[in-house]
This record gives sequence, structure tokens and C-alpha cells, in this order.
Amino acid sequence: MTKAQQLRRRLAEPAVIRVAGAHDALSALVAEEVGFDSVWASSLAISAARGLPDMSLLSMTDYLHAASNINDVCGLPVIADCDTGFGNTLNVAYMVRQYEAAGIAAVCIEDKVFPKRNSFVETDQLLEDADVFARKIEIAKQTQRDDDFLVIARTEALIAGAGIGEALRRAHGYVDAGADAILMHSKSREPDEVVAFLDLWQGRAPVVVVPTTYYAWHVQDAAEAGVAVVIYANQALRAAVCSMRQALRQVLDAGSSVPIEKEIAPMADIFRLQRVDEWLALES
Amino acid sequence: MTKAQQLRRRLAEPAVIRVAGAHDALSALVAEEVGFDSVWASSLAISAARGLPDMSLLSMTDYLHAASNINDVCGLPVIADCDTGFGNTLNVAYMVRQYEAAGIAAVCIEDKVFPKRNSFVETDQLLEDADVFARKIEIAKQTQRDDDFLVIARTEALIAGAGIGEALRRAHGYVDAGADAILMHSKSREPDEVVAFLDLWQGRAPVVVVPTTYYAWHVQDAAEAGVAVVIYANQALRAAVCSMRQALRQVLDAGSSVPIEKEIAPMADIFRLQRVDEWLALES
Amino acid sequence: MTKAQQLRRRLAEPAVIRVAGAHDALSALVAEEVGFDSVWASSLAISAARGLPDMSLLSMTDYLHAASNINDVCGLPVIADCDTGFGNTLNVAYMVRQYEAAGIAAVCIEDKVFPKRNSFVETDQLLEDADVFARKIEIAKQTQRDDDFLVIARTEALIAGAGIGEALRRAHGYVDAGADAILMHSKSREPDEVVAFLDLWQGRAPVVVVPTTYYAWHVQDAAEAGVAVVIYANQALRAAVCSMRQALRQVLDAGSSVPIEKEIAPMADIFRLQRVDEWLALES
Amino acid sequence: MTKAQQLRRRLAEPAVIRVAGAHDALSALVAEEVGFDSVWASSLAISAARGLPDMSLLSMTDYLHAASNINDVCGLPVIADCDTGFGNTLNVAYMVRQYEAAGIAAVCIEDKVFPKRNSFVETDQLLEDADVFARKIEIAKQTQRDDDFLVIARTEALIAGAGIGEALRRAHGYVDAGADAILMHSKSREPDEVVAFLDLWQGRAPVVVVPTTYYAWHVQDAAEAGVAVVIYANQALRAAVCSMRQALRQVLDAGSSVPIEKEIAPMADIFRLQRVDEWLALES
Repeated sequence: MTKAQQLRRRLAEPAVIRVAGAHDALSALVAEEVGFDSVWASSLAISAARGLPDMSLLSMTDYLHAASNINDVCGLPVIADCDTGFGNTLNVAYMVRQYEAAGIAAVCIEDKVFPKRNSFVETDQLLEDADVFARKIEIAKQTQRDDDFLVIARTEALIAGAGIGEALRRAHGYVDAGADAILMHSKSREPDEVVAFLDLWQGRAPVVVVPTTYYAWHVQDAAEAGVAVVIYANQALRAAVCSMRQALRQVLDAGSSVPIEKEIAPMADIFRLQRVDEWLALES
Repeated sequence: MTKAQQLRRRLAEPAVIRVAGAHDALSALVAEEVGFDSVWASSLAISAARGLPDMSLLSMTDYLHAASNINDVCGLPVIADCDTGFGNTLNVAYMVRQYEAAGIAAVCIEDKVFPKRNSFVETDQLLEDADVFARKIEIAKQTQRDDDFLVIARTEALIAGAGIGEALRRAHGYVDAGADAILMHSKSREPDEVVAFLDLWQGRAPVVVVPTTYYAWHVQDAAEAGVAVVIYANQALRAAVCSMRQALRQVLDAGSSVPIEKEIAPMADIFRLQRVDEWLALES
Repeated sequence: MTKAQQLRRRLAEPAVIRVAGAHDALSALVAEEVGFDSVWASSLAISAARGLPDMSLLSMTDYLHAASNINDVCGLPVIADCDTGFGNTLNVAYMVRQYEAAGIAAVCIEDKVFPKRNSFVETDQLLEDADVFARKIEIAKQTQRDDDFLVIARTEALIAGAGIGEALRRAHGYVDAGADAILMHSKSREPDEVVAFLDLWQGRAPVVVVPTTYYAWHVQDAAEAGVAVVIYANQALRAAVCSMRQALRQVLDAGSSVPIEKEIAPMADIFRLQRVDEWLALES
Repeated sequence: MTKAQQLRRRLAEPAVIRVAGAHDALSALVAEEVGFDSVWASSLAISAARGLPDMSLLSMTDYLHAASNINDVCGLPVIADCDTGFGNTLNVAYMVRQYEAAGIAAVCIEDKVFPKRNSFVETDQLLEDADVFARKIEIAKQTQRDDDFLVIARTEALIAGAGIGEALRRAHGYVDAGADAILMHSKSREPDEVVAFLDLWQGRAPVVVVPTTYYAWHVQDAAEAGVAVVIYANQALRAAVCSMRQALRQVLDAGSSVPIEKEIAPMADIFRLQRVDEWLALES
């Protein structure tokens, strides 16, 4: 069973799918170990790992390699965050071809203008024309070779302050164009506007949410409100930054790593994640 | 002043140089922020970030890109962990050319046979012939174009159980061949064998150590024993693994990220590391 | 002397600079051997080598690697064809940083809208707003660290059918913004419109031309008309395609390579271009 | 039908398979257009395109990207020249995983010691121990997931001057270990030693030959002698070098491209190979 099949079947089941954002293969392996259902190859996280802002500076080539590196070692289906599709309809077609060939289960593109700004950065967020974006979705669906591959349409209508009506109109347009699911993004502190959308949406197609700002929304409440997929997009990255800073600071302050030795993974744990034993067995 | 010049001058000063291992640009930026002097582009950490063992599976191309990505955004000089030099003398020459062109301040190669095994993995550690390795050092020094670029010779004599005598003999041979510094690796739980080496070495050339197993050795004690550079090679990575696992597990268990919100970096912190404001200023 | 210095000095001399388009390092080495002054890392040629159209499908990452691979082995200064700058001002800033760090002597960006279409493809050619593009040039010049690095502004005004007046207005605006030279592109069968521009331009800044369609224009006539740089952008690629097709067809038809053996480079010639002897000498 | 299936079925048919060496996607597209059955992603040609000798300087990462770029746009099954497998059994396992995931139909590894020297370079050619190499073949076969994927064992016994007996012994050992075919390499000016091998081999497994030096051997004679696959490994590259040199030289000498315009492919031909019309159709 391909990973796209796995994800598609999982989406047909009633249980909510829980997805962890990853910035590299290691964070994806940790998500798999802990029990997540899928991995989100996050453009915020991947660009942060490169020390660059999430503003379309990294290219499709970079994001594809990052997603592919994750997919190569992690057993979970990967949903790739593909920004705006990296240009126009031609870029979308090329993107679908490349991601599908790399074994990625799903791609997600958003209805902002290239080059995009990260949705949480306080700056103008320019929406793409809805028909132009719907055409991208159509092209993406026409391009895929395997019927199981998924194309998720993400609308930034709420991020851009365009309101529920516009969000709903766009979501319908994108599903009309063939989208397999809608990612309704919001940076509200409460799930209120997402809930309002879900009430009007009436389950026409699976809905994906990213509770970064409205983090208190319990997954069961989300499920009951009609959410099919919840992406915890950046928590692993943010945990890593905090702990690396504390660990390195303590090493400098203490003059050795003594104070942190109990709080960091032992080398054996790293070796286990790297599957050292499996690889060594190939030599015997 | 180039980064190679910075590192070389710093090496000429009496104060010990403290170096943090990095697996990507983000971990390097954290090390810079916290106050480390330099970054170690660690092959263990870089391969772990790819979910692969540190056994020469990743190639020079991969390690060079990783080191170069770090160097592009981090202000600190980068010391690149270059395994065995990725082959023979030709590979070493090509490597020096490529790393120097990428702006890397120093490369470090070790006297094991390609493909190598990570020094902490419990398996046979096969030493390269000392003369063959000395020739690699000569070629590396002949190849560099900028006099400030540094070539560090790492001996695995102690790792391979060959004893202090062999370690000393090799260190002298490599400095005779032109090495700018010696990395004396050890997996003892105590710094005893490193100290024994330092006593006999008498400061002939700067010595680099990696206190992963003998972590209780205080940096000042190391400095007084004659160490010039201390590399904390994998602590940031190990801290990240632990914290990502805990964070993701809590998200699954709690049904939301509420329990971890105070323990993970806020989005604003990520944006600061990405220098979002500096980049946005270019648009105005 | 850096390659940027070499190119800048050469530009200050009266003799016209002759540049060969390259699609890979090998074609650049042939251009160097034959006596060209510089290499054009052509986006048409590089995308053709990948079997993809020149329509912004390949990314900055791909073009940068291609230009960098050329620069690594070829002694000539490389002028990189950087399309529209791969996005907006942020992308231009990132591009300049990366190309300069890779040792590229000059970048050239054009005033079309991203994603661009190759100038010779019969389709609509959409010009970027002149002020928006001038701002890209300003940002590029502000970003460069080495004063010798060159930024060439290419206007597609004639390609887009906007006329000489618009071409002139744009060229002045781009030089006002800091451009080191103007590439005036034309797909006329005659050099007439380029000549008309040169008459009005009065040598305000060096002018670059690409005589693909008006190929009969002799380099001396171009020089006398005021041209500083002539780029033969795609002839090597086109020669290669023709000869590969003929050679492979003859092999199939004849049932062996006998008929072509005298018309193809001997293995020794390939080895010489690869500098096999120099590399082998490093082993002795 | 996957490309591995296509190649495997073709191998089961009596007609000889004719394969063209390619150094990039464009040369592969020309081979496809002309009517070849398959493409050889040649390490000589790919390293030559990079301006580097074929001596294990480029890494698996580089060769994989090159083969993958070819495979992405060319309809023919790709046979990847994988040198020695890039290290030991672990490297072979990793290689098979990566090439198979990229959709490559077959890999070919050779029984020389890493880092290898190109077989036609006049220097010592060091053979790998036959049992060690057979183990690589076993690991390769165990690693592949799709039964149709092919592993070709190339013996350099004749190149190294070890004689027919050793060549035969090795070929049997490699087929015992699971090899799907044997590439019997020779740099004799005549096919004599290959013929001698074929007489003794008695068709135990398909045999692949590379008539670079014994180029006068007609494909039908080879087929009657028992050859299943003929690789014309470097003729396209060598044709390209010759024609690019002549074309560029004439441009310099004549002061324009007038003398070559009839001998080089028109732009429309390049656009056709790039499938510009197909891509543009996606926009309408």
C-alpha cells in the first residue's frame, strides 16, 4: 500500500488525523515514534532550519529535497507544504510531478501571491485571485498520475482578513476545482472563525486546521466541530530551539555538559533513531 | 577579516576556543546567540538530522551543502567535520577546494579507513595507515589557496585502542605533514588518556578535544592541561531530540499544545532567529 | 585578482568582450579553450540541459548550482543569467548574496514578470513595472559586499514590443538605480532596433547584446556601434544537439560507431578537458 | 508498466538492446528521439559534464541527481552507472534504496576498489576481492523492493589484465550472488577477449558490452556472439565536444555565427526538445 493510499484511507475513517510539523528527517522520526499519523513538511520549519525567513526565499528544489529526505526514512505519509505552488500553473504542474515522483502522499498549496509571506508575520498578506488559484488546483489534479495522491487547497482568506464569506466562497471554488481537502488557516487566538466556517461548510470535503494561535482547542472538540485533520505545525521546532538554547547556555556557564547530561538524549538514543543496528547488520 | 583569519587569530590567543556542534543552520544560530566561538559541522549530527547513521552514507556533497548552509547565515567560523576526507588524496584535494570556495574556515579529517563508522558505535574501528593519512594532510595543505584556511588532523588511535604511543606518533607525523592542529579523540569516561597525550605532546601544535564521554572535564582544567579547542559536538542535537519527543508526546496525550506552550519558543523567537525584520526591511 | 575584478577591468578596456553561453562546466571549458573572454550561464541552455523549458520551472537553487559548477572548474569569469531575480526584492537580495558567495563575477536580471517565458518563445511577454524593477537593481547593488561584483540590468522592452522610447527610458532608470551595464535584448532579424537604441544611449553605460536572431551582425560592427559585450548565448548548445543527434543516428543506422569515429573527440581529448593528468599527479 | 518492467521484458526478448550513454537529460532526450532502447547514465560522461575526472570525485548524491534528472523527462528506462557502489555493502544498500525510489530501472556496479579510476585511463586498475564484491551484489538484491529492478554486475577483470579465466570466475560468482546481468568490460582494440568470454559463458545470464575501443564490432555480430545489451557509452558526449569546439571557434574567427547557422539546431528544435508547446498548453 502506497503512502498516498494510506493517507487517503485514513481520511475516509471517522477518527481525526493528527499531523506533526517536521523541519528535517530526525524530527519526523520522533513524530513517528511518538505516534503521530502523518508528517507536515512545513515551509516555516524547513526555512527556519536553514536560518532563513519563510518568505519564498527557499525554492521548490529546496523544499522538495527536504520533504524527500523526510519521506526516505520516515514510515509516515508526508504532506508537503508547497506555499503558493512556487509560481503559476506551470510551476504547479512541475511541482506535482516532482513531489509525486518522490513518493510524497499529499501536497498543499495556498491562495496567496508568490512570493508569499509567512501567515503569522505581521505584514500585508496578499490573496491570489480565487479563479486563478482554482485553476492551479485543476492543473494539479490533472497532472497527478496516481489517483491516490492528494491535493489540499489552503485558503488564507481569514489570515488576510477577508472574512468568513470569502473563505467559504473560496473553499467551495477549490473543491469544485478538484481539491481533496481544504486547509482553513486562521491566526485568531480562538477557534471561533474556524468553527463559524465549519458550521457553514457542512462537511462538503475534509477540513484541515493548524491550531498555532488557537492552541487551546482540544482535538476532540475540533473533531466534533467537523475537522478531519489537525496539524501541529511548528511545536517540535519551537521545543528544539528552546532546549538547544538552554543546553548550550548551560554548557558555557558551567564549563562542561555536566548539568544537562540527564536532560539530553543519550548517544544510544541517537543511534537508535539512526537505526545503526539495522545498518550494521547489513555488514555481517 | 575572513572567518579563517578570525579562527586562526583566535587560535593564537591563550583563551580556549569553545565550539558547538550543529546539525543545521538553526542550531548554529542558537550557538552564536548563546556565545560560542565557532561551529562544528558535525557528521554525526548532520547524518542524524537526515535520519541516517554516521557511516559514510551521506557524501561530501551532502556534508558540504550542510556546512555551507550553516556558514551562509551564521557569523561564526565553521569547522567542518570531513570524516576521512571522503576517499583518497584526490578526494581530499577536491574536498579542500570545495570547502574553501564555500567560505568554510577549517576542515578536519580523521585517520580511519573509508567508509568510516562513528567513533562511539561499538564496532571495529579500522585505522588508516599513518603515512597514507599524512599524505592526505600534505595534499590538503598544498591544495588550499588562502594561507589562513586550517586543516585539522584527527587521530582515532585512542578510539581504535592503539594506545598513547601510537596516538603520539601519529600526531607528530600529521603535524610534520603540515596539520594546523591535532584533534585527539577519545571515548574514555575520563580525560585520562587525553591528559596523558597532552603531557607528552608538550604543546607542539594546538590540540582539539571532544568531551562527549568524559563530559565532566571542566573547560578550565582542559585549558590548563594544554587544550586549545573544546568541541561540544552533539549536545544541542541531543537536547533537541529529548525536547521534541516530550513536546510531541504531550500534544498527543493532552489533545492540544496547552501543556507545552510555556516551554517552547514563541513564534516571535523563531522569527527573530530567521531575521524576519531585517528581510522585511528590504521590501520597504 | 578576483574574477569580478577581471571582468570589471576588461569592461573598462575598449575591446569588445566576447562571451559564450554554457549549459554545463564542459561547454564552459571548451569556450575557455577556444579563447572566449567570459561565460554566460544561460537559463535557456541550463534548462534545456535538464530537458525543461526556460519558463522559471528550474529554481534559483538549480541555476546557482549550475553556475557554481561552471565557475569551479573554468578559469573565465561567469556572468549568470538570473531571469527576473526569482521573485521580488527579497529574492533578489538573497540571490546576490548566494551568487557572490559562490564566486560568480556578475549577475544579470531582466524586467519581466515572474514566472518568465523565454524571450524567443512566441507567447505574451509581460514587462515588470519599471520602478519595481529599478528597485530590484538598487537592492542588488546594496546587497553586494565586494565593489567589483557586477549587476547587469536586462530590459525586455523590445522583446515585448514596447518600442525604443520605452527601452531607452528603462535603460536610463536602471542605470540611475545603479546597474553596471544594460543588456538590450532584441529578437529582430536585424540589429536595427539595437542600433537605434545605441545611437540614443550615447554610451552612458556599457551595453550588452545577444545576437541570436540578428546573427549576421559582425562583432566589429557591433563594437563600432557602441556595444561593449556580445553574448553568443546558445550556439554551443545548438551545435551539441545537432551533432549528438547525427552521431547517435549513425550508430543505430550503421550498427557500430565506425562512421563517426573520426568526427567525435577521442577519449584522450575528454581526459584532457577533465584534467586527468593534473588530478593523477596528486596521487604520486 | 514501470520502466524496470519494460527493461526486464526487453531483456527477455531475443533482440539486442541498444543503449546510449547520456551526460544530461538533453542528451537522453536526443537518444530517445533517435530510437535507442535505453539510456546509460554514464559516470564518465556525467563527470565530464562537470569538468571533473571520472575518479570517484563526484559522489553518489551527484550521480543520483544526474540520473534522476534524466529519468524525470526521458521516457526510456535508465541504467545507472554506479561505479563501485560508492563504498562498501552499506553504501550499496543505501544506493539501491535511493536509485529505486528515484524510478531508475537498473543499477550497474563494478568490481574495482573505491575510489575508482576510469577504465580507459592509463593507470593501475585495482580489482576488488571477488567475494567482497559478490557480497555487494547480494546486498543490492536483498535491498531492492520491486522484483523488476535490475542489478548489473560489471567485472573489470579484463581491464585490470587478470585474464579470461578470472573474468569467467568472477562472472559466475556474481550471478551466483544474484546479479541480473554481467557487464564484461574490455579496452582491447578488438572484441577478441569478449568473444572468448562469451564462448565459455554459454549464455548463463545476459551479457552487456561497451564497445568504446573495439568499436568496429557490428551489433549483429555482437548479438550472434551472445551479447544481450550494447552500450554506446560516450559517443554523444564526444560528438558534442567536437561540435561545440568547432562552432565556438568559428564564431570567434568569423566575428559572428553566420558560418555555423546551418549546422546548428534552430531554436525551434531546442524548444521542441524542451516540449515548450506542451508546457504552454497548461497555461491556456
